[in-house]
Amino acid sequence: MSVERAKIRLFVDAALGPAQSVPLRRDQAHYLFAVMRLAPGAPVALFNGRDGEWLAEVVEAGKRGGILICKAQAAPLATPPDLWLVFAPVKKARTDFIVEKAVEMGVARILPVQTRHTNSERIRQDRLQAHAIEAAEQCGATYVPEVAALQSLGKLLDKWPAARRIMFCDEGRAGRTDALAGEAGQGGWAILIGPEGGFSGDEVERLHGMPQVHPVALGPRILRADTAAVAALTLWQTTFGDWR
Amino acid sequence: MSVERAKIRLFVDAALGPAQSVPLRRDQAHYLFAVMRLAPGAPVALFNGRDGEWLAEVVEAGKRGGILICKAQAAPLATPPDLWLVFAPVKKARTDFIVEKAVEMGVARILPVQTRHTNSERIRQDRLQAHAIEAAEQCGATYVPEVAALQSLGKLLDKWPAARRIMFCDEGRAGRTDALAGEAGQGGWAILIGPEGGFSGDEVERLHGMPQVHPVALGPRILRADTAAVAALTLWQTTFGDWR
Repeated sequence: MSVERAKIRLFVDAALGPAQSVPLRRDQAHYLFAVMRLAPGAPVALFNGRDGEWLAEVVEAGKRGGILICKAQAAPLATPPDLWLVFAPVKKARTDFIVEKAVEMGVARILPVQTRHTNSERIRQDRLQAHAIEAAEQCGATYVPEVAALQSLGKLLDKWPAARRIMFCDEGRAGRTDALAGEAGQGGWAILIGPEGGFSGDEVERLHGMPQVHPVALGPRILRADTAAVAALTLWQTTFGDWR
Repeated sequence: MSVERAKIRLFVDAALGPAQSVPLRRDQAHYLFAVMRLAPGAPVALFNGRDGEWLAEVVEAGKRGGILICKAQAAPLATPPDLWLVFAPVKKARTDFIVEKAVEMGVARILPVQTRHTNSERIRQDRLQAHAIEAAEQCGATYVPEVAALQSLGKLLDKWPAARRIMFCDEGRAGRTDALAGEAGQGGWAILIGPEGGFSGDEVERLHGMPQVHPVALGPRILRADTAAVAALTLWQTTFGDWR
């Protein structure tokens, strides 16, 4: 597209379309006008996860709010592949990283799960969702994956869709790096990353018993959960996803 | 191997071998005896980057030092593939992550470079080397890659070995994800990751002019430098490295 590129990308809730006006929340106005010092006329790229990316222009800049007007669509909506990232939350900074990385690498949904050996009993879902939005603003994505509420792995597997396959990254156990080869990508996939202490024996047994599960090895060294997430996402994206 | 697994892995400088005694530095003694509360007789896994992993036993535990005795080799030395990671340092936490990830993913050398658009003018080489050691202790590696001193990309390329290929990860420019296919892994490789601002036009032109350079694309979104490093390492390891 030959539309002028705005330096700032902002996620908004409002609908985007030709000549659409977009009101700003107080924190967004603070960011654009106090921090970034934008003045009326300045270009901003907007996306809302539904309508692609739009080039907009500041028309009103205030301390507690402001208004932008959409000028032209800069990119259509690009939805990521039908891939979920299911992971056991680890320490705060690394959990934040996993969410950031999932957005950059391209997933449709992010599902934190409580496993037998998960250390953290709770997550701040709203904070992780905000992280996902920030990562999308940064990486040029026009879609923001939903971060689901923390749920137990057992309950998630109880209602697991029959057609959705699971790339099961089980540190230190069987599985081949090329286990995905020859497996078609239809029906959706999920990548499952375990906690730092690994999955419990029960969990591993249950997963190996599911026909949807494909155990995959991630090399000879022990990867931290955040490293494993990026490595698994790379393997999946280059095999089935939008990196091909 | 059926040797008893020690829960603590420690990198030491001393030679390791049958009945070899290993003196501890003050900080190591503090960690083992004050923090981890080990007593004489406790098992510790030792590695030095040269002699593999050895199961050792505490024989003297003091406040300012201590002595371990090697009992048996638990694993032979496993050197990573002949792969260098060349990257432009970014913000401190992300630079630390890149070093940690490089060790987990398996590289032989880590070379921070100053590019036209690199933000940070200096790095703490000793701190990054300590990070590499800590990552090796954590991920079960028996080898610790050297972290080289910061040098300019231009000077590094001036003396670049004719046989060492470069996997050039240039965000937002040409290159295919499968650009490595069919390229043999002999002669050594390097992965080159750019700064957050990308490479300059001069740098890109020079790299594209080198016969060793293979531009590789990392998907449709813009990856942060730390994400790009892990993704590129995954692609390389599954194509040529020890993940096959």
